Amino acid sequence: MAEDPLDRLDATIRARRDAAADTSYTAQLFARGRARIAQKLGEEAVETVIAALGPDPRRIVPEAADLLYHLLVLLADAGLSLDDVRTELARREGVSGLEEKARR
Amino acid sequence: MAEDPLDRLDATIRARRDAAADTSYTAQLFARGRARIAQKLGEEAVETVIAALGPDPRRIVPEAADLLYHLLVLLADAGLSLDDVRTELARREGVSGLEEKARR
Amino acid sequence: MAEDPLDRLDATIRARRDAAADTSYTAQLFARGRARIAQKLGEEAVETVIAALGPDPRRIVPEAADLLYHLLVLLADAGLSLDDVRTELARREGVSGLEEKARR
Amino acid sequence: MAEDPLDRLDATIRARRDAAADTSYTAQLFARGRARIAQKLGEEAVETVIAALGPDPRRIVPEAADLLYHLLVLLADAGLSLDDVRTELARREGVSGLEEKARR
Repeated sequence: MAEDPLDRLDATIRARRDAAADTSYTAQLFARGRARIAQKLGEEAVETVIAALGPDPRRIVPEAADLLYHLLVLLADAGLSLDDVRTELARREGVSGLEEKARR
Repeated sequence: MAEDPLDRLDATIRARRDAAADTSYTAQLFARGRARIAQKLGEEAVETVIAALGPDPRRIVPEAADLLYHLLVLLADAGLSLDDVRTELARREGVSGLEEKARR
Repeated sequence: MAEDPLDRLDATIRARRDAAADTSYTAQLFARGRARIAQKLGEEAVETVIAALGPDPRRIVPEAADLLYHLLVLLADAGLSLDDVRTELARREGVSGLEEKARR
Repeated sequence: MAEDPLDRLDATIRARRDAAADTSYTAQLFARGRARIAQKLGEEAVETVIAALGPDPRRIVPEAADLLYHLLVLLADAGLSLDDVRTELARREGVSGLEEKARR
């Protein structure tokens, strides 16, 4: 079993992708499709923004966890994984953010 | 140096938190403050949603990388880290998503 | 009674602002406070984005109605109204969008 | 000329829909297409949320004006108009928000 809880979550999400929709929240989400998953990701981002501006910054943590969970589901739904994002982050390591921004 | 690009990014972001604002995009972002960082996070989430519904799902990867980067900056700005989110995800491991949802 | 449904909605929302929270969805929303109203506005914007990219553009209309409704609630909660936004739009009329953008 | 600045803006936007892309910000936006317009709408919603939680609620007004402007552009791009949203709001007038919510 992976040591990183992010990877364990990623593995669990992948395992549920093709399970029956009534067995878990994750399976239900996959059954509702890409647009619905993207909508949930957007909503969790809004909640993270609200938490970030609220009086107790520790409230960011559960919202960030929800946001990451829905991001992993979205990646899995598109046949992608957290490792694809890690590869992209590693690729950017030699490049400054300002340079990265300028290239786009 | 950390093996996981996510942790290397987290470490880089923390190192830049107190650097002069003209030295990097990350330092500039910290200098503009919490509301601006949260705004950028929200904007990157919107871009991820758009990419998710577009014709080429591989476009999700760079947007997800941008989203994660801004999430790590937001956490760092609030004195939190990716490890706090990992702890939250580990805590939820024994709990089903439907149960987790019902509790809130 | 106002001729414009937007103004009728604005008037209805204002009338409910100080009503008991159990009498209408609008009164409930005011009772939950500014952060919750802002969160709902953000969520409706996400739904509008999703509808805009979907196969049936007519789905934008009910989402736009939800978005405007929550925007009017947010304005009312802050002691503002749709007329304040109309005044701002009228003020901008002499200014090109590119110029407006450059000024900020 | 329409009395309501919202309708004047709607008319201006429609007039620019088929103009050359270099003549105005609005024409540029139409030229970039539906996904880009939707992205801008999402970003303006995020800015409205941030303003709503900030220290000066009057900052909501310019953000709400930007949000409405981009909503009108999105509607126009899809062959729809503010009047379609007014019709939807008028249709809902006999229906309570809680009932409306329950139906969906």
